Amino acid sequence: MPDTAASETYSYLGPAGTFTEAALAQVPQAAGKPWRSVNNVGQALDDVVSGRSVAAMIAIENTVDGGVSASQDALATIPNLRIVGEYLVDVNFVLVARPGTTLADVKTINAHPVAYGQTHLWVEAHLPHHGHLPATSNVAAAASLLENDLADAAIAPPTITRHHDLDVLATNIGDNPNAQTRFVLVSRTTALPGRTGSDKTSIIAELPDNRAGRLLEMLEQFATRGVNMSLLASRPIGDALGRYRFVIDLDGHVHDERVADALLGLKRFSPNVIFLGSYPRADKLPITVTPRYENEAFTDARDWLRGLISGEPDEGFGR
Amino acid sequence: MPDTAASETYSYLGPAGTFTEAALAQVPQAAGKPWRSVNNVGQALDDVVSGRSVAAMIAIENTVDGGVSASQDALATIPNLRIVGEYLVDVNFVLVARPGTTLADVKTINAHPVAYGQTHLWVEAHLPHHGHLPATSNVAAAASLLENDLADAAIAPPTITRHHDLDVLATNIGDNPNAQTRFVLVSRTTALPGRTGSDKTSIIAELPDNRAGRLLEMLEQFATRGVNMSLLASRPIGDALGRYRFVIDLDGHVHDERVADALLGLKRFSPNVIFLGSYPRADKLPITVTPRYENEAFTDARDWLRGLISGEPDEGFGR
Amino acid sequence: MPDTAASETYSYLGPAGTFTEAALAQVPQAAGKPWRSVNNVGQALDDVVSGRSVAAMIAIENTVDGGVSASQDALATIPNLRIVGEYLVDVNFVLVARPGTTLADVKTINAHPVAYGQTHLWVEAHLPHHGHLPATSNVAAAASLLENDLADAAIAPPTITRHHDLDVLATNIGDNPNAQTRFVLVSRTTALPGRTGSDKTSIIAELPDNRAGRLLEMLEQFATRGVNMSLLASRPIGDALGRYRFVIDLDGHVHDERVADALLGLKRFSPNVIFLGSYPRADKLPITVTPRYENEAFTDARDWLRGLISGEPDEGFGR
Amino acid sequence: MPDTAASETYSYLGPAGTFTEAALAQVPQAAGKPWRSVNNVGQALDDVVSGRSVAAMIAIENTVDGGVSASQDALATIPNLRIVGEYLVDVNFVLVARPGTTLADVKTINAHPVAYGQTHLWVEAHLPHHGHLPATSNVAAAASLLENDLADAAIAPPTITRHHDLDVLATNIGDNPNAQTRFVLVSRTTALPGRTGSDKTSIIAELPDNRAGRLLEMLEQFATRGVNMSLLASRPIGDALGRYRFVIDLDGHVHDERVADALLGLKRFSPNVIFLGSYPRADKLPITVTPRYENEAFTDARDWLRGLISGEPDEGFGR
Repeated sequence: MPDTAASETYSYLGPAGTFTEAALAQVPQAAGKPWRSVNNVGQALDDVVSGRSVAAMIAIENTVDGGVSASQDALATIPNLRIVGEYLVDVNFVLVARPGTTLADVKTINAHPVAYGQTHLWVEAHLPHHGHLPATSNVAAAASLLENDLADAAIAPPTITRHHDLDVLATNIGDNPNAQTRFVLVSRTTALPGRTGSDKTSIIAELPDNRAGRLLEMLEQFATRGVNMSLLASRPIGDALGRYRFVIDLDGHVHDERVADALLGLKRFSPNVIFLGSYPRADKLPITVTPRYENEAFTDARDWLRGLISGEPDEGFGR
Repeated sequence: MPDTAASETYSYLGPAGTFTEAALAQVPQAAGKPWRSVNNVGQALDDVVSGRSVAAMIAIENTVDGGVSASQDALATIPNLRIVGEYLVDVNFVLVARPGTTLADVKTINAHPVAYGQTHLWVEAHLPHHGHLPATSNVAAAASLLENDLADAAIAPPTITRHHDLDVLATNIGDNPNAQTRFVLVSRTTALPGRTGSDKTSIIAELPDNRAGRLLEMLEQFATRGVNMSLLASRPIGDALGRYRFVIDLDGHVHDERVADALLGLKRFSPNVIFLGSYPRADKLPITVTPRYENEAFTDARDWLRGLISGEPDEGFGR
Repeated sequence: MPDTAASETYSYLGPAGTFTEAALAQVPQAAGKPWRSVNNVGQALDDVVSGRSVAAMIAIENTVDGGVSASQDALATIPNLRIVGEYLVDVNFVLVARPGTTLADVKTINAHPVAYGQTHLWVEAHLPHHGHLPATSNVAAAASLLENDLADAAIAPPTITRHHDLDVLATNIGDNPNAQTRFVLVSRTTALPGRTGSDKTSIIAELPDNRAGRLLEMLEQFATRGVNMSLLASRPIGDALGRYRFVIDLDGHVHDERVADALLGLKRFSPNVIFLGSYPRADKLPITVTPRYENEAFTDARDWLRGLISGEPDEGFGR
Repeated sequence: MPDTAASETYSYLGPAGTFTEAALAQVPQAAGKPWRSVNNVGQALDDVVSGRSVAAMIAIENTVDGGVSASQDALATIPNLRIVGEYLVDVNFVLVARPGTTLADVKTINAHPVAYGQTHLWVEAHLPHHGHLPATSNVAAAASLLENDLADAAIAPPTITRHHDLDVLATNIGDNPNAQTRFVLVSRTTALPGRTGSDKTSIIAELPDNRAGRLLEMLEQFATRGVNMSLLASRPIGDALGRYRFVIDLDGHVHDERVADALLGLKRFSPNVIFLGSYPRADKLPITVTPRYENEAFTDARDWLRGLISGEPDEGFGR
């Protein structure tokens, strides 16, 4: 029954073997459901919007390259999406080749530009005279070695040998041993995942105008409520140079009073705000909050205000 | 019937003829009711607390001397009081003496220290060799001329000749032609006067601790909601030098969303806040508010937040 | 020789026995020099301006009443003055009377209004039916008991019996056992006292206009340089209600780079700034400074800026 | 003589016909000098560092994609570089093919990923079933059509037909009619270009730690000096997710006092700051500055501070 299948399908940047697939493998509710491999972020989110898939896994940021612009811009411009989960994947690369190839044979390397950039130091050191052929995905680069001889080797995730009969010429060739990519699982707008105590809230907001200090005013909406930002990225609005919107991750869940209050302040300040969701953090680190920004402080303040508006006596400071 | 009378009596710093009486004369609901003359601010507020009077008129600030400490401290320490109105009185002084006295006869001047301070330039210029006898009120100074001869002249409000048979030796002797005193009418805690669009909200607040930048953090609670302060005065808490509480007047009424929200923020930030009331401004100047701090912005933001928590779709920025 | 004497004379609010005299007794360089008793702050500062005295001791703030308005306003309006030292005096009161008087005989109390205010609780409890006769100084109140019988007792400092033959009816009658008054020694503008590491800098500043958030902007000049404020008091400018100047004490000496830099920022921001001096703190507490606001950070930054303007290479972050 | 040539050579992302070449064509001093075409930003800057070229033109930001990460990261990590000029190029694309090809023949498009992304709407609408072959530059994509038949058409700048014998199948196929790319000309560290009144200053800075509000504190260094930011981009430091450095463009020249002072503040605040240069803005728009942040305000403040430290009299506010 197609409808049932659609409502259970998960889209991801394929083919099988990509880091995105490794992220999707971390999602318990996706286990045993149909997974749909797509070619880019736009297709993955189109699947979600059209109902072809229940959710899509997309890369949002990595340690080396920073924010994934295509993902950030897609979330800013496609309505009715919600981030419902966050996943981390260690980024590690191997150099693979057709069976029988040696390192000395390698003249052209097929690689996705991001993977190529992240292995630059190793490649320069060991293959100083190589050429680079760009690929659309890490796995496609490896797979193409078996289809044509445009390249002699490919840069791919270590899991690539599970899918393709290739020789590994070198392992751990990434420049940064701590490299990680952060992925988010995106669904249509839906009820929020519950508060876990280790949550993140993602928003995108524009400034009211370009006057000096506007960004500062926007950030004060968070600071005066004790809300920490774990990400601030600027993306061009696209109509003219110098006009940006800001992609922001906040510590905490919109069910936390201080986050809800900060969003109210932001909504009043900013002419355009998109709420992308509140969801559990991948690192499961608990958020520490100064007592005066805890939920109870908000409830107490509202009780106090309600009382004084209705004419209840105040206490004074005493002598 | 004493109870009825008590509930209709107004206390003020007397005797008849003081600037405080002139302020009370501006209160329509006090017309035709019993007025009770007292000797100081403490007595006036005790009358209100004990139910002897329905309200008390007290001076809170003047152009020359600044905040009236006794009034500010009484409002900070006596619980269950509310400011329900604000009144301005032009401050103007005359020099009066027993009939037959000339300026040349004046050797000692009886005057309340504040009045004496506000006429310092004139007195130095015209009576360089005078002595000063302090009095408890401007009117008491004048009245005492007819009771004893400790002084030859007194500094008093122009209306003094309505009450006492004295000669005016000089008029307009105040150093500052724009001098005004601001008075507030104080009742027990009661329902708030309605919002008029030209209102003031008075509070007193303490800082959580003495760390650098704390006052700045407190003031940001107002700034991030577009709430202007018309008064910020510091008063010693009294337990040690260097510890202060702050007496603050805000533009707007607690029924204005931005003021209510700023008070919530202040309540969470400050370990001790006293709300003294929202009441019509004496100068009746309308408060101008940036659109993003208008009530509608607050209502819209709450509707938006409620929608997104319940899972309503967002719109995105469009392409 | 009068000139020599003048250049060595110290003025203070007298007569002998006042708390101000106790403050002056703490000044080593005043020991053995002529002391001149005056009647008010204005006279004390006039002595300094005219050269009659080398310096004047004036009360600037006390734990109970807060800032001494007359002193703050005199420092704001009289040019060419400098605060060169700060002194603390514990404030303690006794009730004195003519020999032979008992507490039961006391009907009228002579007292300076500030002393009267600071003993209010004791007086109300023990002499509920008394009258109050205001005096110009604590000592004058006591001395007048021996000159006339307008009052039966006086509130005075404990040292009063060294100067006058009076009976002590009660001791420690102050409401606040921690009460202190802070005094400053004021000279004509002169070279600054050296930096001791426990210093204070006093200024008075006006805001450029009454727009919302202006005070916040001014305070940020201190906060962005890590300069702590130990005092912020507002004083009316005097031309209209709602216009204030601010009396500010900063932790640190103008020879501290962060204080000098904050003053530069303040001078650019404020249309009117008065520098009242940098001088050793009475409490001798050392000022703790975050490393990034230490002198070295300022010197390093200037060296760096000078280098990059002249074209010296930068280092980059390294890989 | 190679040395002479080296010191006159300009490197740019080639081959001939790229937008980068169009940017270099705007540089008067590069006219008639050798231009060296390289394959990526790293090579271009290596040329500068090694002395092979006197300067390199690199793309730094575009309206649609935002900051060019490779350029921003290279400027952060390669020492001894200075931006000396800024240039804007309108971004416009055509679809080209081997002579004789029609739109209906196009199955595979060769295009640099950025160009492909910027023409996505047109391509989806007119060639819904196409495949994409990534290229290393727009011009390389077009040139390869004449070398092999892996693709049927290429996306290239309008000037491509000057260099290659290709048919234009469609013009103005960019999604954004206002698209522009901003380029910077980078040399080794050298004396600064003079102040023109329409200048920009570029820096890269890290925060002292990850405490809440740190970014806000950093931005206040600019706000308290009236310095406007025209760009704030975050780039991962690379050692762990969640750690960023900030690429910042400020309005004004380091020879403007307010910019120099803001850099001093930033240097003290930030553990790592790189100054990338002050240079004329491409748009030649004059910077408007509030009078209190003009050079004169800084000079006046320094004169005032110097005077008061040396003991010159202050003026007071007058009465």
